[in-house]
Amino acid sequence: MEIKYNDNGLVPVIVQDYNTKAILMLAYANKEAISLTRETGFAHYYSRSRRKMWKKGEESGHTQEIVRILKDCDCDTLIYQVHQKGAPCHTGYDSCFYRTIEGEVIGKKMFDPDKVYSGSKKD
Amino acid sequence: MEIKYNDNGLVPVIVQDYNTKAILMLAYANKEAISLTRETGFAHYYSRSRRKMWKKGEESGHTQEIVRILKDCDCDTLIYQVHQKGAPCHTGYDSCFYRTIEGEVIGKKMFDPDKVYSGSKKD
Repeated sequence: MEIKYNDNGLVPVIVQDYNTKAILMLAYANKEAISLTRETGFAHYYSRSRRKMWKKGEESGHTQEIVRILKDCDCDTLIYQVHQKGAPCHTGYDSCFYRTIEGEVIGKKMFDPDKVYSGSKKD
Repeated sequence: MEIKYNDNGLVPVIVQDYNTKAILMLAYANKEAISLTRETGFAHYYSRSRRKMWKKGEESGHTQEIVRILKDCDCDTLIYQVHQKGAPCHTGYDSCFYRTIEGEVIGKKMFDPDKVYSGSKKD
């Protein structure tokens, strides 16, 4: 079954650490980003705010090497299972999901964002 | 920080088995579904196809007991960490992500959907 894109031509991608099974982030990909991800073996997404294709870690060096890609029953969501270099979150935490809904911090800080990002692009 | 809903008043929810860390499914919740989930301790969603609130396992009995809820850095995606009763996927597999993007089946079949669902609602 073909991948089903939403009205904006995007599909949500859950990013999971292949070894620890931790959920690292959720991003969106278009057809081109998925093709490039499969061709290069490194995670690419489509940035809805910057309206462009984006290689994870382009600036920060915090790339995601693809182990395998899964699709769900409806083919409208993907999982990238990856080896994460550095940390996935622009805040410096080891997962974008570093807080409970009540606000308790459960994640681990891996780097200081001010020392990693010089520009406005926090990848 | 408050949860940010998209233009349709929804937020994507990644559902993860609390013990095994397996990713079970991706669904969407509105404000009411999140409130009910927190009040009852069982996962509720908003069905985009049926346009209504929905308790997971309503018909099948395959409920999801909430252990905790996480939010991401942008507060526009949630994780429900759950204890899954039965299986999460209407196909009978132990995860909606039971196939690689190439189509190889990596999931485990837990039940026969024809024996679990009598109506059109596959919850």
